[in-house]
Amino acid sequence: MKINANYGSLEESYLFSTINKKVEAFQAAHSSASVIRLGIGDVTLPLCETAVRAFSLAALEQGKADTFRGYGPEQGYGFLREAIQNYYASFGVTLSPDEIFVSDGAKSDIGNILDLFDEDNTVWIPDPVYPVYRDTNQMAGRKIVYLNATKENDFLPMPDFTQHADLIYLCSPNNPTGAVYTQTQLKEWVRYALEQDAVILFDAAYEAFVSSPELPRSIFQIPGAKECAIEFCSLSKTAGFTGTRCGYTVVPEALKRNGFSLRKMWLRRQTTKFNGVSYPVQRAAEAVFTPEGMQECKAHLQVYQKNALQIANTLSELGIYYTGGIHSPYIWMECPHSMKSWEFFDDLLERAHVVGTPGSGFGVNGEGFFRLTSFGTPQATQEAMERFRAVYTR
Amino acid sequence: MKINANYGSLEESYLFSTINKKVEAFQAAHSSASVIRLGIGDVTLPLCETAVRAFSLAALEQGKADTFRGYGPEQGYGFLREAIQNYYASFGVTLSPDEIFVSDGAKSDIGNILDLFDEDNTVWIPDPVYPVYRDTNQMAGRKIVYLNATKENDFLPMPDFTQHADLIYLCSPNNPTGAVYTQTQLKEWVRYALEQDAVILFDAAYEAFVSSPELPRSIFQIPGAKECAIEFCSLSKTAGFTGTRCGYTVVPEALKRNGFSLRKMWLRRQTTKFNGVSYPVQRAAEAVFTPEGMQECKAHLQVYQKNALQIANTLSELGIYYTGGIHSPYIWMECPHSMKSWEFFDDLLERAHVVGTPGSGFGVNGEGFFRLTSFGTPQATQEAMERFRAVYTR
Repeated sequence: MKINANYGSLEESYLFSTINKKVEAFQAAHSSASVIRLGIGDVTLPLCETAVRAFSLAALEQGKADTFRGYGPEQGYGFLREAIQNYYASFGVTLSPDEIFVSDGAKSDIGNILDLFDEDNTVWIPDPVYPVYRDTNQMAGRKIVYLNATKENDFLPMPDFTQHADLIYLCSPNNPTGAVYTQTQLKEWVRYALEQDAVILFDAAYEAFVSSPELPRSIFQIPGAKECAIEFCSLSKTAGFTGTRCGYTVVPEALKRNGFSLRKMWLRRQTTKFNGVSYPVQRAAEAVFTPEGMQECKAHLQVYQKNALQIANTLSELGIYYTGGIHSPYIWMECPHSMKSWEFFDDLLERAHVVGTPGSGFGVNGEGFFRLTSFGTPQATQEAMERFRAVYTR
Repeated sequence: MKINANYGSLEESYLFSTINKKVEAFQAAHSSASVIRLGIGDVTLPLCETAVRAFSLAALEQGKADTFRGYGPEQGYGFLREAIQNYYASFGVTLSPDEIFVSDGAKSDIGNILDLFDEDNTVWIPDPVYPVYRDTNQMAGRKIVYLNATKENDFLPMPDFTQHADLIYLCSPNNPTGAVYTQTQLKEWVRYALEQDAVILFDAAYEAFVSSPELPRSIFQIPGAKECAIEFCSLSKTAGFTGTRCGYTVVPEALKRNGFSLRKMWLRRQTTKFNGVSYPVQRAAEAVFTPEGMQECKAHLQVYQKNALQIANTLSELGIYYTGGIHSPYIWMECPHSMKSWEFFDDLLERAHVVGTPGSGFGVNGEGFFRLTSFGTPQATQEAMERFRAVYTR
């Protein structure tokens, strides 16, 4: 018996547990302090009414013999795949329902997609990064090359055409930096992937935050991307599905490697190792994509967008460098006074009673940076920014 | 770019599509014939009332800010893990909630668990078999040795102590044969696994059909099993969750290999590649394990059990060899008059207008056998058996 020894080389992540311990210790020592958390990546507003109605009705359908549904298609019901198809069409991307796979969330698919690729591939991953890209590849023992995302490139690394990659992770709008690739930049990435026969794994989980039609919400808005990219998306941030669980992955028919259709491989993977998403959850997701659902979700998104803008404006006012804040729920700021990430964490907690996430937790290039999120309430966000201003005005 | 070439060696399964084509062709040629399907592995009765109530209430909770739940624990909410812990206690198995992992179904976990094991392991898989065991290992290129399940061993293969295995799949009550291992037989398997340092992957998806306290419902009823087994279970058949999606996997704390805790590895795998089951689905699952829920589910199970008994009694009457029928929703019968599996499929459809599943679709040892299921309505099952009797009485 040999276990997968790659698990031995995984680093334990203490990021969020350390944050929690520090906050608890501070709260114990300062019981009257009201701590505001702008560190979490989870939404706080409930599901929209239209989705909740569809969700609970479908749950009741499961209790009656004539409306009960057993095993559904592993890749998702046609009604939901068509709703997603229409959603993509609304920003100019033409897909067939067969290219759309419904799942329980982008995180699962981002991990599981690696089943399709040999372990002997070179993987490019930006740094700083959502840790799942790194950990899932380390679990399979793949060679990882980090792409430096720094202040110099606005945290948007571009391809080096003299180097070879097989798999490339891009996340735009980015977690944790909030940076968004332009059409021109993504065209360059597609050109690189086509030239190198690489596959781009495009994480579009935050696409709903993009508020300018100039900026791409999908890699498939770039010509040629269907020959070199897989896209992951989710209702977690679009519609508050973090606890309801529904996402989708697009594997275009045109994507072939070594004579294999990656769409067919993924279909085979999912029919073998997945049994589809809960039927009532799929009905809730379908409701999100109706005109009423979209309108209600937009109203929720606007709450977060206003929070983000408030944080961004405060930083601008204070002359602090940041990315994100617009087109993203995240604000990635440089720590004031050249503080290191954890140093600033302590300082912010101690002096403003505000909690964020140290950038160094996302990779070596995150050192000296800090992530704030817009998922708090407007009141808490405003209060946090007032304190922030009071403490960090030069 | 190299894709995972093991996908190229996977056999396409045409079993259920061929069945459907044959039935459609028959129906087209005999439009007045009323065809009864006893081939499906899906339940037909709805969720029990108690589960539906909890499910729809929790869906409504997701629509209110003060009851809304975002990201939950990847391994499942404490309330559900404790309910499962109590369920196991009801048949004498003591588990800690930390050893229980809630998932979207046994099929996902049975596939994903292989992430923890090196590709260089020898895997024992019974034949005939649920195809997922075979396909998921072929996807990773593992060496598979088939265990012959035949009439001679009542379709319950036992270990050969002169041979070495690393991973062993056992499914009891078995799909497709309905055969159930005894305590004595499972003790022998545990003794073998401990001696060889192997890990048993125990599929208990049909445990709720076991109606005798003498027969094990869990491998953990066997002393020593916590040092050598992982168990997969599901609410699909227990409570009709095939379309609602919830299962659970037990990885005992005592299970270590190469100095690693497999429980910790699985926790790491799930926190990295999974985001937990939908909160309302977990509430529905919790309700299944209440006294009311259990009673309602039992009433549904009894409908299937009566169907199974009716099929079994018909076969006994006709002097046809079979396994299952009791302690299982499946009846695995020898084809009459030494017919081959597909020959009998055609004969049964043509003469009795009844559909089942050819045993050869589950492996080479399935040739000459046939699977009937008890998931139809009592009326349809009775009618099917009357036709069966009319055609196959010697």
